[in-house]
Amino acid sequence: MSQPPKVVLAYSGGLDTSFCVKHLTADKGMEVHALTVNTGGFSPEEQKALEQKALQLGAASYKAVDALPTYYDQCLRYLIYGNVLRNNTYPLSVSAERMFQALETVKYANSLDADAVAHGSTGAGNDQVRFDLVFEVLGNNLQVITPIRDMQLSRQEEIDYLKKHGIDWPWEKAKYSINQGVWGTSVGGAETLTSDQTLPEEAYPSPLTQKEPQVVTLHFKKGELTGLNGVSYDHPLEAIQALQELAAPYAIGRDVHVGDTIIGIKGRVGFEAAAPLIIIKAHHLLEKHTLTKWQQYWKEQLANWYGMLLHEGQLLEPVMRNIETFLAETQATVTGSVTVQLHPYRFELIGIQSDYDLMNSGFGQYGEMNKAWSGEDVKGFTKILSTNLKIHHFVQQNAPKDD
Amino acid sequence: MSQPPKVVLAYSGGLDTSFCVKHLTADKGMEVHALTVNTGGFSPEEQKALEQKALQLGAASYKAVDALPTYYDQCLRYLIYGNVLRNNTYPLSVSAERMFQALETVKYANSLDADAVAHGSTGAGNDQVRFDLVFEVLGNNLQVITPIRDMQLSRQEEIDYLKKHGIDWPWEKAKYSINQGVWGTSVGGAETLTSDQTLPEEAYPSPLTQKEPQVVTLHFKKGELTGLNGVSYDHPLEAIQALQELAAPYAIGRDVHVGDTIIGIKGRVGFEAAAPLIIIKAHHLLEKHTLTKWQQYWKEQLANWYGMLLHEGQLLEPVMRNIETFLAETQATVTGSVTVQLHPYRFELIGIQSDYDLMNSGFGQYGEMNKAWSGEDVKGFTKILSTNLKIHHFVQQNAPKDD
Amino acid sequence: MSQPPKVVLAYSGGLDTSFCVKHLTADKGMEVHALTVNTGGFSPEEQKALEQKALQLGAASYKAVDALPTYYDQCLRYLIYGNVLRNNTYPLSVSAERMFQALETVKYANSLDADAVAHGSTGAGNDQVRFDLVFEVLGNNLQVITPIRDMQLSRQEEIDYLKKHGIDWPWEKAKYSINQGVWGTSVGGAETLTSDQTLPEEAYPSPLTQKEPQVVTLHFKKGELTGLNGVSYDHPLEAIQALQELAAPYAIGRDVHVGDTIIGIKGRVGFEAAAPLIIIKAHHLLEKHTLTKWQQYWKEQLANWYGMLLHEGQLLEPVMRNIETFLAETQATVTGSVTVQLHPYRFELIGIQSDYDLMNSGFGQYGEMNKAWSGEDVKGFTKILSTNLKIHHFVQQNAPKDD
Amino acid sequence: MSQPPKVVLAYSGGLDTSFCVKHLTADKGMEVHALTVNTGGFSPEEQKALEQKALQLGAASYKAVDALPTYYDQCLRYLIYGNVLRNNTYPLSVSAERMFQALETVKYANSLDADAVAHGSTGAGNDQVRFDLVFEVLGNNLQVITPIRDMQLSRQEEIDYLKKHGIDWPWEKAKYSINQGVWGTSVGGAETLTSDQTLPEEAYPSPLTQKEPQVVTLHFKKGELTGLNGVSYDHPLEAIQALQELAAPYAIGRDVHVGDTIIGIKGRVGFEAAAPLIIIKAHHLLEKHTLTKWQQYWKEQLANWYGMLLHEGQLLEPVMRNIETFLAETQATVTGSVTVQLHPYRFELIGIQSDYDLMNSGFGQYGEMNKAWSGEDVKGFTKILSTNLKIHHFVQQNAPKDD
Repeated sequence: MSQPPKVVLAYSGGLDTSFCVKHLTADKGMEVHALTVNTGGFSPEEQKALEQKALQLGAASYKAVDALPTYYDQCLRYLIYGNVLRNNTYPLSVSAERMFQALETVKYANSLDADAVAHGSTGAGNDQVRFDLVFEVLGNNLQVITPIRDMQLSRQEEIDYLKKHGIDWPWEKAKYSINQGVWGTSVGGAETLTSDQTLPEEAYPSPLTQKEPQVVTLHFKKGELTGLNGVSYDHPLEAIQALQELAAPYAIGRDVHVGDTIIGIKGRVGFEAAAPLIIIKAHHLLEKHTLTKWQQYWKEQLANWYGMLLHEGQLLEPVMRNIETFLAETQATVTGSVTVQLHPYRFELIGIQSDYDLMNSGFGQYGEMNKAWSGEDVKGFTKILSTNLKIHHFVQQNAPKDD
Repeated sequence: MSQPPKVVLAYSGGLDTSFCVKHLTADKGMEVHALTVNTGGFSPEEQKALEQKALQLGAASYKAVDALPTYYDQCLRYLIYGNVLRNNTYPLSVSAERMFQALETVKYANSLDADAVAHGSTGAGNDQVRFDLVFEVLGNNLQVITPIRDMQLSRQEEIDYLKKHGIDWPWEKAKYSINQGVWGTSVGGAETLTSDQTLPEEAYPSPLTQKEPQVVTLHFKKGELTGLNGVSYDHPLEAIQALQELAAPYAIGRDVHVGDTIIGIKGRVGFEAAAPLIIIKAHHLLEKHTLTKWQQYWKEQLANWYGMLLHEGQLLEPVMRNIETFLAETQATVTGSVTVQLHPYRFELIGIQSDYDLMNSGFGQYGEMNKAWSGEDVKGFTKILSTNLKIHHFVQQNAPKDD
Repeated sequence: MSQPPKVVLAYSGGLDTSFCVKHLTADKGMEVHALTVNTGGFSPEEQKALEQKALQLGAASYKAVDALPTYYDQCLRYLIYGNVLRNNTYPLSVSAERMFQALETVKYANSLDADAVAHGSTGAGNDQVRFDLVFEVLGNNLQVITPIRDMQLSRQEEIDYLKKHGIDWPWEKAKYSINQGVWGTSVGGAETLTSDQTLPEEAYPSPLTQKEPQVVTLHFKKGELTGLNGVSYDHPLEAIQALQELAAPYAIGRDVHVGDTIIGIKGRVGFEAAAPLIIIKAHHLLEKHTLTKWQQYWKEQLANWYGMLLHEGQLLEPVMRNIETFLAETQATVTGSVTVQLHPYRFELIGIQSDYDLMNSGFGQYGEMNKAWSGEDVKGFTKILSTNLKIHHFVQQNAPKDD
Repeated sequence: MSQPPKVVLAYSGGLDTSFCVKHLTADKGMEVHALTVNTGGFSPEEQKALEQKALQLGAASYKAVDALPTYYDQCLRYLIYGNVLRNNTYPLSVSAERMFQALETVKYANSLDADAVAHGSTGAGNDQVRFDLVFEVLGNNLQVITPIRDMQLSRQEEIDYLKKHGIDWPWEKAKYSINQGVWGTSVGGAETLTSDQTLPEEAYPSPLTQKEPQVVTLHFKKGELTGLNGVSYDHPLEAIQALQELAAPYAIGRDVHVGDTIIGIKGRVGFEAAAPLIIIKAHHLLEKHTLTKWQQYWKEQLANWYGMLLHEGQLLEPVMRNIETFLAETQATVTGSVTVQLHPYRFELIGIQSDYDLMNSGFGQYGEMNKAWSGEDVKGFTKILSTNLKIHHFVQQNAPKDD
């Protein structure tokens, strides 16, 4: 008797991937290995519950992987080095973590010598492309199965199907679909499908509970957040999470991102990301003091590109490795502290302290004193600086007027 | 008997340029023609007062030029088209207007057949370069005289000098130096000379007086602000000023800019710019809906460059004309309304309405429905999209491991 | 009785599109309207012969469109303005003309109210994407039919099929496949499918017949080639063709292009393009004399992007219109003459003459004389220019050595 | 009795720096330490002769430094990694080596605890800025002395001065001024001061002596030239020099560069650089086969910027270190052989062989066969790829026509 084909399913415990477990076992006769990849969205208790559900649905096995350290090392720190905000707004919360979920899934499938991988994405979003791309590139002849995209079932049809198979769990549709991770929580709802409405207060999972302003100091070492308010952490991830706890009650970092999807339509999504926004803006301020103009210029070019390719599922493109090396190299002097004041719904950057501060070094004070040069030096400077424009102007004046 | 040499002085009525009037007439024997170029900082009453002071100081003539329409046409609208914020922060309030003050000054000097132009800049800032550059390029053999830069006098020495010459006006040093214009007000003080302190509440000229949130709708036509809350204005400048009146009481648009000066040091300056910030962010949102990904990408590249060169006094560089043409060309579809909610110290973008909105066009809804393509189409798409990475991965796997 | 469905076929008269005519009529029962779009590859006699063949194969109608003027106006001149050479090598000969063939085909199909369009591309190249994209975007619900791609027939199978249907024409396979157009002729063969061999002399359609060097002067007006050796032409296309006649006998402009295809594999193709290469290099030299550094910088950025998107079938992307406007705007001063010496297999740029030459304007001669500034001016210039590096160096020296 | 001030002079043995030795000792009473920095232009015999001359002129000491290994390590290899040709033409022969001459000079001056450094540049070129900048940034309070720039003497005046001081050497003015280094030889003359004439055959130091075509194979390892025709070299510099010996007799790599100088005028200079041109073009071809599209894109951006800053004396700008890291990182797969055919005045790239070749990997052959995907896949690809343009076109068609 032949073995049933093995499939690894990227499993989140929602209605769609629950349907997938049942459908792949019952209708396709497959041996389903459910995998949950944690990028900051699941507690140990939640993972325990996921396991029970998966097995009850018929999965042959369940596994939970903690992808956070890899995710930080191979991606998040570059998003911080690069001050990456997609379209000047969005910290790429979901885009980034989805890639690491895909990477862990294909790794697991290859290790099990599986025949297939499955994911629960629909046919209208970016995630399908992110999963497909990674599976195509790194899979060992893995078939890619996407029941939700292929069958285009409604929620009710999925619920009915599960009921028919003896699974009668409560599947109340939340008014807002939430995706939580260490680098932010995305929020979708009826409003984000329009162009003219924004999410109401209650759509955001973290309500405003802190109204008293508070000053917090972020300590960076070579571009990484290593401490808060004088306390050092063993790993930047801990510092990020500590800051999130501090800042989330202020309802900071809420916004709505409008952008171009990989599949060519415009998409809109809300998010809240208190710690990511504060870290990026604080880090950026520290760089304004410690990097030269052209370092900042080229960092911005490459970091924006990095964000774009990451968003579009291209983390495996080799230029990403090249850009990561560049970004890391620029952080040599990005060491120091940044003071930030938290207010309800907003924060204010107070200032920085750094041994690498290029501002207060005794050479001169902007608009005040020039110690390292004279007025005559500036006159010579401007004279030479104007030469090419003078020539251009002269030539324009003296060229024959033709038409 | 020979005529005294004629000099046109860029005159603002402050201690420095007041000193210049007296010094140029009394010590240099020059015929001083004082010129005030209004870029939004002076009321008619203030100009009247300036005239009286200038003549009393010994100026041979006084003139006030309204540069606002030129400034808008030749610069401000491009800053809006380009969503220009220097270092992602500063709307270039002072940088831009200083150029138009220099341009009007040299134009006036040439028209008077003057022998010289003078300005009151110190030797430690950007303004000296902006003035010098324009005078070098466009001046008809004009000598450039800069008494403050050359003599490096203290405030007290200037006051004493004026007193000696019979001018005993009150010159109380303001705690914060303020420069006001239509595109924002800069604020400098003891704190902005440090890296770690920020300006206190009282440093900003516009106090918070409005606490009740308010929704305002901005109407854009081909990238220009043409109306507010259903009311059309004859000129975008009027719309900008009306929005400023509405938004300033919320103390919106305050921040501190840290940047690289033309002369190589880092400089820090505070500013408040309620209308400019709201307009730029609203305009940008409208573009996210109405421009393609690559239009936005290249606009950002060119606009940031435009902002950088403008900041550095290079408005006369011919590439600026090329960039302006590009930016204007991109605005063909940037027509529509943007709703913004004003809160104390911050604002929130609600959404947009536009006939050119690329989002809600019936082709599909992000993450929800795909009407214009099938799951199979996306599979083919991703397959082809993955080819180059697949090849790269395959080649890497199969290359001999050398070292 | 129902009408047979109407299809417009992009018809070149080769084996593939000849097969298509017969297949679409005989097997699909379609009314085939054959269209040849001339972008410089067909003489009137050849078009006459194409017409006879098409009708004999069963086409309901035949039409030849002269797309040259449109092609020049909407594309070629921008390739010249932009000095566009893909991967620094290839003048985009085929890439550009294929787009205009697609555009004319869809326009014709829409005007005939056709049900479908067909093209003869295989599934392994760029052309299929170029045709498909244009048909998708501009077609009025046109079905896209691609028999060669879909059926994957061998040459022999196609020949046998035609023979079976009474068409027994000689279809000798040329050793090299040639595609000729006004902007160059591409050459493919066994060698271009390898990485290590190049095309032999005989692969190139234009043999070396001229060995005597010859000087030719190109006259440009605002970036367009308007004359040669003192003779003006009514249209730049005539000047281009005249130069081609002059230069082709020198076997100039041969090379092999290696690049990334739209479908993700690397592709390699030979080409000869005497006039295009000479024009682009001469035009570029004229720009080096008449544009500023930053104009050249940004032109290169945008023009390379333009070439990339054009190559990838994205001519309809709206950013292309924005870039075209930018490029045209930069050409205001690109007027003058460029002298070139033709040699066998190569050419040499001698020099330029232009009223807009920024070089010899009396301000100074490189390395020889400085008239417009003094040594002291340069010292001041360099002093200021060094400030930021001095500060950086100082800060680096004085920062604590941590790890 | 006080010590005479110590000055280190960047000494080349020409008229200008010979004048400097005498002037600095005789008129300024300085102790002159002459330093020759060899970047490929001097043989041991020439250095011996330079030493004798320097001492005879009155120098207190003479030293020759071999800067080649440093120059290669810290600069040349990045120019190769980056395929750097300034303005698409010039390998930066002089620009690069001048920086290393300045760096060695200031290092020597600091080590001697000198009071001053001197160089022989005029006031009209780039070199003065390169020297000044490095001395400003790295000098320990060194005075910078530039007699030629300051005194603006004519050749005859310098000769007369030396004669008066007993130095009556033959100083015949060469018709062409030549500057030789490992990365090329620059050639200036009467023609390069015009815009319309080019250098005659005899201006170039390496005459055409080889007319028989010859095939040569270049071996690259991670972007560095490590061998030729199957022979490995101990150091890439040896491979470069061996290739130069092979190729120079073909008079390959001659051209005239027109560019923007640091001081704002346009400058024009001839050069010959056989090995550099062949290496860069061969290396570039290898990259076209072994790097992805976006790796090539970003390499080109950063490398052009690197070339520009290097040309402008900004080697010490920290962004240069960041770019170098990026460029080196991209070279991981740039290993393989490139075959080149040498002809009189030109060379032809034949092809490459590499284990990292992304072209012939069995996935498909351009325009021939698609093995890794189907026609249906491409149809899906193009459908999704066209979505954003379809939406844009649809929206444009349906927007109200306003003006």
